[in-house]
Amino acid sequence: MGMIVMSPSTQGFYEDLLSKCKDMTVLRSAAGIVQWDMETMMPPKGINLRSEQLGLLDLLSHKMLTDPAIAELLRAIESSPSFPDMDQVQRRNVRLIRKSYDEAVKLPEALVSGTAKQVTLSVGAWKRAKAAKDYSIFKPELAKTIELKKQAGDILMRVKGTSNRYDALIDSFEPNMTADRVTAVFSEMRDQLIQLMRKIEASEVKPDLSIVSRYIPMNVQRKISALVMQFIGFDTTSAAAGGRLDETVHPFSTGYYDDIRITTHYYENRFVSSFYSVMHEGGHALYEQGFPPEWMYQPVGSAASYGIHESQSRFVENIVGRSPECLRYLLPRIRKATGARLKGVGLKDFTLAANAVTPSKIRVEADEVTYGLHIIIRFEMERDLFADKLTVDELPQVWNEKYDKYLGVSIENDSEGVMQDTHWASGYFGYFPSYALGNIYSGMWLDRLEKDVPEWRQRIGRGDFAAVRDWLRQSVHSKANLYDPEELVQVITGQSLKVGPFMDYLNRKYGRLYGF
Amino acid sequence: MGMIVMSPSTQGFYEDLLSKCKDMTVLRSAAGIVQWDMETMMPPKGINLRSEQLGLLDLLSHKMLTDPAIAELLRAIESSPSFPDMDQVQRRNVRLIRKSYDEAVKLPEALVSGTAKQVTLSVGAWKRAKAAKDYSIFKPELAKTIELKKQAGDILMRVKGTSNRYDALIDSFEPNMTADRVTAVFSEMRDQLIQLMRKIEASEVKPDLSIVSRYIPMNVQRKISALVMQFIGFDTTSAAAGGRLDETVHPFSTGYYDDIRITTHYYENRFVSSFYSVMHEGGHALYEQGFPPEWMYQPVGSAASYGIHESQSRFVENIVGRSPECLRYLLPRIRKATGARLKGVGLKDFTLAANAVTPSKIRVEADEVTYGLHIIIRFEMERDLFADKLTVDELPQVWNEKYDKYLGVSIENDSEGVMQDTHWASGYFGYFPSYALGNIYSGMWLDRLEKDVPEWRQRIGRGDFAAVRDWLRQSVHSKANLYDPEELVQVITGQSLKVGPFMDYLNRKYGRLYGF
Repeated sequence: MGMIVMSPSTQGFYEDLLSKCKDMTVLRSAAGIVQWDMETMMPPKGINLRSEQLGLLDLLSHKMLTDPAIAELLRAIESSPSFPDMDQVQRRNVRLIRKSYDEAVKLPEALVSGTAKQVTLSVGAWKRAKAAKDYSIFKPELAKTIELKKQAGDILMRVKGTSNRYDALIDSFEPNMTADRVTAVFSEMRDQLIQLMRKIEASEVKPDLSIVSRYIPMNVQRKISALVMQFIGFDTTSAAAGGRLDETVHPFSTGYYDDIRITTHYYENRFVSSFYSVMHEGGHALYEQGFPPEWMYQPVGSAASYGIHESQSRFVENIVGRSPECLRYLLPRIRKATGARLKGVGLKDFTLAANAVTPSKIRVEADEVTYGLHIIIRFEMERDLFADKLTVDELPQVWNEKYDKYLGVSIENDSEGVMQDTHWASGYFGYFPSYALGNIYSGMWLDRLEKDVPEWRQRIGRGDFAAVRDWLRQSVHSKANLYDPEELVQVITGQSLKVGPFMDYLNRKYGRLYGF
Repeated sequence: MGMIVMSPSTQGFYEDLLSKCKDMTVLRSAAGIVQWDMETMMPPKGINLRSEQLGLLDLLSHKMLTDPAIAELLRAIESSPSFPDMDQVQRRNVRLIRKSYDEAVKLPEALVSGTAKQVTLSVGAWKRAKAAKDYSIFKPELAKTIELKKQAGDILMRVKGTSNRYDALIDSFEPNMTADRVTAVFSEMRDQLIQLMRKIEASEVKPDLSIVSRYIPMNVQRKISALVMQFIGFDTTSAAAGGRLDETVHPFSTGYYDDIRITTHYYENRFVSSFYSVMHEGGHALYEQGFPPEWMYQPVGSAASYGIHESQSRFVENIVGRSPECLRYLLPRIRKATGARLKGVGLKDFTLAANAVTPSKIRVEADEVTYGLHIIIRFEMERDLFADKLTVDELPQVWNEKYDKYLGVSIENDSEGVMQDTHWASGYFGYFPSYALGNIYSGMWLDRLEKDVPEWRQRIGRGDFAAVRDWLRQSVHSKANLYDPEELVQVITGQSLKVGPFMDYLNRKYGRLYGF
């Protein structure tokens, strides 16, 4: 049994700090419900009231976080002689609050509100420009948005002590990650992904995509979702259920601890879309549900990073969900639910169709192999933009060149090119890397899982996901936000972050499927 | 065009006050969404987090309301020489904020939190006592709850300047109403209701209740709900919809302005239950949707009282929905939706069954005639309790005597007697009168409607509810909280509050149905 070695007063300060943190967390979780309601339930006329509600909740959260009392408590705790004797969780909590506080108070309010206004203009211009396929409509607003994000990056760089402004932006999504580290792993991954993609293109094995575009009515797809949720153990039906599944235009997951909600979208001619989106969002959901209950309302009881979150969704969706073993178990059940609609669809053909690789122009439609290339292109461009090596004028041309060079596709207009995503218009710079880091992390988890639970594939083939879920829970979920991502990788796998395991997994799987 | 005659500084204070009021309103509306979600959508495991969320939102609302800046603004405005020159809406807003503020700051926090804790104990004891049919389990906790409400009443009596403590409690639900006024109208109504009930009991006409207990599956009942909503004009489906219908154990309505939500409960062997609960809650919903848009976020843009709210739901449910004219229009459509299930059910029999009068022990199952008697019993007992003329020990006996005397039913145990409602356990004293006042108000509206739109019944018979809705909108809804209830009655009808119109309506309708 550990002894609390903090002085009584430090202990009191710490408890006060956690109590304020609890209020912030509870308020944000309430705002999460209101946000979810907007996407799923709200009658259309409610939109103006809703934006008032969300704006106010955001303002109240921000006021709570920037309360001078928080600064005083932090200073008192950090300057206490017993601070170094606090346990790991306590120190992590203090550090995470310190980080949020510093970020919130150091950015001038004029910059924050100015950016919010500019983003509205910039998203508006992006929509118009995309519809008109005319980058020149978007360019001036994008330039202003980037300028403001550079200013924010310059300030945050000093607050966070990063060596450049883009690192400071990345850090908001992937704590302590740097553009240099990302460049190192992405460069290695880029060449290997291109090589693998070319091998697959050269293969004589061609997936029959008509299988996965057969018409499956929505109510049948809902049954498939129920199968998936039962398989992964995301409970939405029992008297102790801590989750929900709803339907929205774009799938997402949200919630906190005992109330985690995912959504999907049903396309009647593309049932694998919802099949895999339930797996993907379910992976996010299991992560959140796996945080230690005793860390509820504490900063440590949250996700380690966007990339670690994504490693969970991709693990469940791709590594498990697209594996031949998982499909061996689920396909007969899907076939049963769909009646005659999937008649004659065999496991081998279905597995191949579910793992079809096709270089494309659009990121959100990309497969497991080419997805990383879409991200790498964006990362390389963001990095150069923020290092003033690339201008807003040059973006479309550089984009098109990279798509040609890495993916071998020619972009015909900027709407399917540099303007395809909303991220830049919304000022989300530094976010894209997390998507591909999620894949790389998931490869590291797989490498470790193979050693810890060598028979995991056989178990999946029997419909037993519990061994994998327990491993993820114990190894990843239960550590929540105790470590920064790279440190977490080290703690779980005993190795530093590397691309090898993810590429080995891809090469093995696709080599087998495409016969090389 | 009116001129703003306030001095520039008073104008500024007033705008600041309204801006703070807007924040409170927006926050409370967000809490309303979170509360609604708890009743309709929340996964069961989320309950503890939810109670933290609602508790915090409540605390934040209370902090906003008791902000000393509000007191300063109120003082500055009220003491300004230009205060009397403010327009009616402005003065009403100031008065309503003053009232809320005074109530919120004058009740000691220890009393408020002590009452909240006591109510939890008292509701717990009530549940156990009700299950065990043993009032002695409930009695000590009820006594403590009443003691605390007496203390609150004593304080609020001084704050509000009422002549006794019970009036101060009534005022929270029915502003400016007094026990004396309620006694006057209720005594008159009591004798007349008993007389009418006896006439109906003596009639040879007996409704065939088997008609309304035919099995109607839930999905068919959902279609009936859609018919009802279309009939009354509660839009939940269009691209401009400002409402929703969901399913809960107990029907309720909630929401604010452009986002109003009602619920119902489907009993497969009692379809009229949901049929009329959608009308009832729809009546509440139309009221909220009819407040002037320009009063949004202002105190004046809210309900005048619980009783006025109830007058709207009962008007739609009873006066319109149970009228032969409405059923003439809706029954064929219901019959179509239910297929063979209502075969052979004629309009006359259905109307009679929908207007069956049966003295019963349970308030929530009561019909339009006997309902008032249930309320009057509760009111008389509350009034005597708070005047120290009745003790907690005597409650069951007095309850049973009154049920025997007014309704002619014998109460066999206290679970179906004094412990049937949760209101007293929850500390809601002064609330019951509003239910029956709602009926009395609705009679006053009817009296005026007959003069303004004499052909309203024929229109309803043709499925045209618009004339009634427009009348309610213009007469009642559009005045929102500009007047206290009795004043509102005077403004709308040109008469003071009286029982006559409601009793005339009942006597006419039931005389025709039961042949006397």
